[in-house]
Amino acid sequence: MFRSEKQFVDWLRSVASAGSAKVKQGIGDDAALVSAGGSKDLILTTDLSIEGVHFTRALHPAPAVGHRAFARSLSDIAAMGGTPRFALVSLGLSRQATRAWVEGFYRGLFALARRHGVEVVGGDTALVPGSILIDIILTGEVSRGKAILRSGARPGDQIFVSGRLGLSGLGLQLLKSRAKRSGNLQLAALAVNAHSYPEPQCDLGRLLSKQGLATAAIDISDGLSSDLDRLCEASGVGARIWENLIPGPWEPAQGRSPSREMLRLALHGGEDYQLLFTVPSAKASRVPRRYRGVQLRGIGEVTRLRKLRLIRATGKEETLISAGWDHFQKSKF
Amino acid sequence: MFRSEKQFVDWLRSVASAGSAKVKQGIGDDAALVSAGGSKDLILTTDLSIEGVHFTRALHPAPAVGHRAFARSLSDIAAMGGTPRFALVSLGLSRQATRAWVEGFYRGLFALARRHGVEVVGGDTALVPGSILIDIILTGEVSRGKAILRSGARPGDQIFVSGRLGLSGLGLQLLKSRAKRSGNLQLAALAVNAHSYPEPQCDLGRLLSKQGLATAAIDISDGLSSDLDRLCEASGVGARIWENLIPGPWEPAQGRSPSREMLRLALHGGEDYQLLFTVPSAKASRVPRRYRGVQLRGIGEVTRLRKLRLIRATGKEETLISAGWDHFQKSKF
Repeated sequence: MFRSEKQFVDWLRSVASAGSAKVKQGIGDDAALVSAGGSKDLILTTDLSIEGVHFTRALHPAPAVGHRAFARSLSDIAAMGGTPRFALVSLGLSRQATRAWVEGFYRGLFALARRHGVEVVGGDTALVPGSILIDIILTGEVSRGKAILRSGARPGDQIFVSGRLGLSGLGLQLLKSRAKRSGNLQLAALAVNAHSYPEPQCDLGRLLSKQGLATAAIDISDGLSSDLDRLCEASGVGARIWENLIPGPWEPAQGRSPSREMLRLALHGGEDYQLLFTVPSAKASRVPRRYRGVQLRGIGEVTRLRKLRLIRATGKEETLISAGWDHFQKSKF
Repeated sequence: MFRSEKQFVDWLRSVASAGSAKVKQGIGDDAALVSAGGSKDLILTTDLSIEGVHFTRALHPAPAVGHRAFARSLSDIAAMGGTPRFALVSLGLSRQATRAWVEGFYRGLFALARRHGVEVVGGDTALVPGSILIDIILTGEVSRGKAILRSGARPGDQIFVSGRLGLSGLGLQLLKSRAKRSGNLQLAALAVNAHSYPEPQCDLGRLLSKQGLATAAIDISDGLSSDLDRLCEASGVGARIWENLIPGPWEPAQGRSPSREMLRLALHGGEDYQLLFTVPSAKASRVPRRYRGVQLRGIGEVTRLRKLRLIRATGKEETLISAGWDHFQKSKF
């Protein structure tokens, strides 16, 4: 079997057809981008959510399963700078799933879809022998030539992230521990909510596309270290980021250094669905510090040397290991 | 849980959003149809293929699994009269799947895709705890307003089918029985091939759309009796079909009446991926008897009375029971 997702995707690209002029971006980005003939390009994306891999019924109520599954695809459209339009929902139901579960699932899904102006126009359904499986297919549109790809980052570009990273990972830890917490209840609530009902950054993606600010973007679905690696790999560049600039799950006003665990979550925790994007130095000052309630923060720079480097708070520079989620290697549960 | 697929789809349509003017056909047809702004409408479809439900590794070699999964979606585009364009492939692999299996799967899939001019532009992949699962997403295009829906059949229209029905079901029986056959080896080979490598009728669908011949169409994926019921339900009509006009899996030159089992396969066997379509009486003579090697045969007529009736070879008229595959009720294996 393939050893990693990257090995699989490289193989698949090598055997897939060469690609006509209509295909602007095929296998290997957040979503596919094809010419639709008119003034808009068509974005196509699909994301699997599987019981026992991406969610469990013990930790995730049905509406959260629907919301999270839909958020994965919305976030891909956001990363391309597009506007989501139409969705198909494929659902494989196990015999254990109740009607109440199905209704809750769609309630969560439709609520998020409506908020983003997406219409669910079809799908497929089957009874399956094992776990519940969901595949969310989403189309989006973007003005011709204005989509943001992973591959456009250039040495010298500044690296930005939206929101706080690692909150979703912290939320999952809290859900799994089921411990009564005497600690920071406000942070705990924020983290569990970030995990159960993540908010894809479609508005921000559109801003970056419309204003031509970003040279490249990717959504942080598998963790900053892994998704930064993918963006750099696609762009043929490296990156240097500063630990103490990364907006982690901790409270910024806490007044002391974040714990190792909090740092690990910020660097490698997935499912935050924030955007990671690169901006030419000359335009960096045009990136607002906050957009529609979400902070945007510069965390480093793109380098010619094709390596990922992390500058610790102590000033020590080291290799940043991609330790986020690889879909071929492990499950979170 | 929902008792049937129909009950589920009815519920889903009732809770899905009302639908904007851009949505020409939402939940409840072979595929969704949306306005793309230009001279073409966009067709979107997705089909699940799940190990143990739609295929088994014992009966279906990996290339056949890839071919069959892809054929399901191609056939939906064919039924709308569209031209297939771009595909996404979602694949949930169990740990038992070997690299050779994955390569064989894509070989079968890509061969069919290339033959129909479809480019695979993306997808998603995961390791799953249980059975292998596949979701094939396909876009198609059709000239604005020229898509054929399920809902356009009118009383008096003639009912046609392409090809021979029940061949795929017969092929599955032969594969399952593993018996050495002394009977008609040519028919056996034809049937096994029809089951393992079905050929979606995209050329025929385009002909019907371009020439404005069909008032309604559906692909026969779950069996003639079930798919005729769906077409009639969507159109608010009924149908009367003649048993001795149905092109079954038997050899037409056989000179004797088909067996009960052969008739059952022709009426209720699924996965032939032939087209069932309705044509106004005045245009019926313009339907060729054969198109690109596939025979087209009139089998009955659309009625105002919303019932399905079967005229037996004896002349006896009876109710046609929809006994094809319901995705909420059983597995074929």
